[in-house]
Amino acid sequence: MKIAVDAMGGDFAPLEIVKGIEIARDRYDDIDFQLYGTASEVKPLVTNWERIELIPTTEVIEMGDEPVKAMRRKKDSSMVRAALAVKEGHADALFSAGNTGALLSSAIFLVGRIKGVDRPALATALPSFEGEHDQFVFMDLGANADSKPAHLYQYGILGSFYASHVLGIQSPTVRLLNNGAEEDKGDEVHKVAHQLMKNAPSFNFLGNIEARELLEGTADVVVADGFSGNAALKATEGTALMMLKQIKAAIMDSGTRGKMGGALLKPAFKSIQKKLDYNEAGGAVILGVKAPVVKTHGSAKATAVANTMGQIKTMIDQHLVSDIQNYIDTHTEELQAGKEALNAQINA
Amino acid sequence: MKIAVDAMGGDFAPLEIVKGIEIARDRYDDIDFQLYGTASEVKPLVTNWERIELIPTTEVIEMGDEPVKAMRRKKDSSMVRAALAVKEGHADALFSAGNTGALLSSAIFLVGRIKGVDRPALATALPSFEGEHDQFVFMDLGANADSKPAHLYQYGILGSFYASHVLGIQSPTVRLLNNGAEEDKGDEVHKVAHQLMKNAPSFNFLGNIEARELLEGTADVVVADGFSGNAALKATEGTALMMLKQIKAAIMDSGTRGKMGGALLKPAFKSIQKKLDYNEAGGAVILGVKAPVVKTHGSAKATAVANTMGQIKTMIDQHLVSDIQNYIDTHTEELQAGKEALNAQINA
Repeated sequence: MKIAVDAMGGDFAPLEIVKGIEIARDRYDDIDFQLYGTASEVKPLVTNWERIELIPTTEVIEMGDEPVKAMRRKKDSSMVRAALAVKEGHADALFSAGNTGALLSSAIFLVGRIKGVDRPALATALPSFEGEHDQFVFMDLGANADSKPAHLYQYGILGSFYASHVLGIQSPTVRLLNNGAEEDKGDEVHKVAHQLMKNAPSFNFLGNIEARELLEGTADVVVADGFSGNAALKATEGTALMMLKQIKAAIMDSGTRGKMGGALLKPAFKSIQKKLDYNEAGGAVILGVKAPVVKTHGSAKATAVANTMGQIKTMIDQHLVSDIQNYIDTHTEELQAGKEALNAQINA
Repeated sequence: MKIAVDAMGGDFAPLEIVKGIEIARDRYDDIDFQLYGTASEVKPLVTNWERIELIPTTEVIEMGDEPVKAMRRKKDSSMVRAALAVKEGHADALFSAGNTGALLSSAIFLVGRIKGVDRPALATALPSFEGEHDQFVFMDLGANADSKPAHLYQYGILGSFYASHVLGIQSPTVRLLNNGAEEDKGDEVHKVAHQLMKNAPSFNFLGNIEARELLEGTADVVVADGFSGNAALKATEGTALMMLKQIKAAIMDSGTRGKMGGALLKPAFKSIQKKLDYNEAGGAVILGVKAPVVKTHGSAKATAVANTMGQIKTMIDQHLVSDIQNYIDTHTEELQAGKEALNAQINA
């Protein structure tokens, strides 16, 4: 298999990207890598060219660039060229640590939507602290700020495929992030989405979940509209970071006694931090497009990049995209029926 | 001043409510309390009737009751009777630890909206860990699942009044919870709200805030639509609780060494937990109605109830409601102009 790598995206690109790719090359012997990037910067960093090919590009999409504009105008950027390679069948998957919006645009407009998927969405695996499994799929993380009920329904399908194919969870359960457990809770979008999902033949819906229970692991897939999904994810990250910071500060403030305690607890803290640092395990995936497209956080170092290659390999090995495609192709009536039920409800 | 107390609402009602009121009575010598509740249950709990009056009621709104229905049907419930006392001028403020939705309905339909406020909303003070002040106002916590831009604009006004009058923050700053820092981020509602707020003569708008920075204290008031505000608040609470739980578990798992460390760090953990437990400091306030209406969490114990009386006293002492009322009365043109600008934008 071949992975097209945007070598220029990310805070520590191209250095950490190239280092990560070399680790992955040594780890997975069936992956070939195409590095898209500025030759003068990337070339000196590669120590061993085995299964690594450099495709020189002349432009870079910056973190601050306006996504759609950047994708349209920077035609010789590392990201756009890597996306086009996937589109044209020269590579099987796309990886970037760069501008998320531009990667989304590249995924949707260049790699292309799977026919029948209305809105590709961003998904990630988060730690599930008390559930049956170690992780759950959370989506949409913010690809679509304005989600409709039919989109949320489709996220249930896409998320279930990711949970089964990549996290290895048999018949995954699905919940809808809402501001109450009862089915009449939420705004119109979530009320209607709940009704659609309740009768879903395509996945195993358990009902609503409130953001307070997110990390408890009461479902294998949690579906959210992109706006509140983004808010819940970021509030979770922000709170976890703030607490670790506060604990460190409290330890430093508490004199010899506290510092001794802190030293003794170091291994315990490390294990929690590791569990929380879900970014190390891989990236956010754009589900609903014609190939695996994965984004790691901008500050990803080599290890995270290498781990993400493992995640992409699993997606390819498990035929995630073709299985989604086949499912949607053979269930157009169900998806259509969902939309009609929806329209009937809205016009009632 | 007189506070009407729903003595029957909350997981530990009426015991902890009555205990809390007695603590508050001893602490604040200018407050009279009216306890609305089932006589046979409340009467035996009161140890000293000084400045405490029992108004017997025969019904109780339960946590699981459908809010509007319960408010309409249970006319002799402790909550409805307490709300009516405020409406009729027999009391200055309303307190309950009961059904939040029913309290919202009672506040809006019985106590009544301030003329000119389109949507009363739920606000709370959260800890600000790195800001200039210790706390900031976060609203709407979920009173309105479907918020319009003009509502978010009004929350900016209401929140600023709460920050100045109750938290004592001079010329408070305001931010809008959105899924990106740039002004073109978010769905239509948040894009338009940002434009309205940017030109706000009524408050000091600093721009968007992402949920990740919520606890950092970069603003004195954070305005959110009720749906994502609810999600962000609950994700914050859930993550904080989960982390404390995980730390405890990691300490227990880490042998003698870890347990010793945990024992040494106990005071440090206590101080963080106290800072995080914003519920102890008071309740969530329904802003935009004609009197202070405050809800503490259902599991509130006596201390939290007593502290909430202090919060209500500040609201009354500082003339929060009449100052909001006066401001809105004298700025109808501005509020109207905001709506017109909005309509122009929407129809453009």
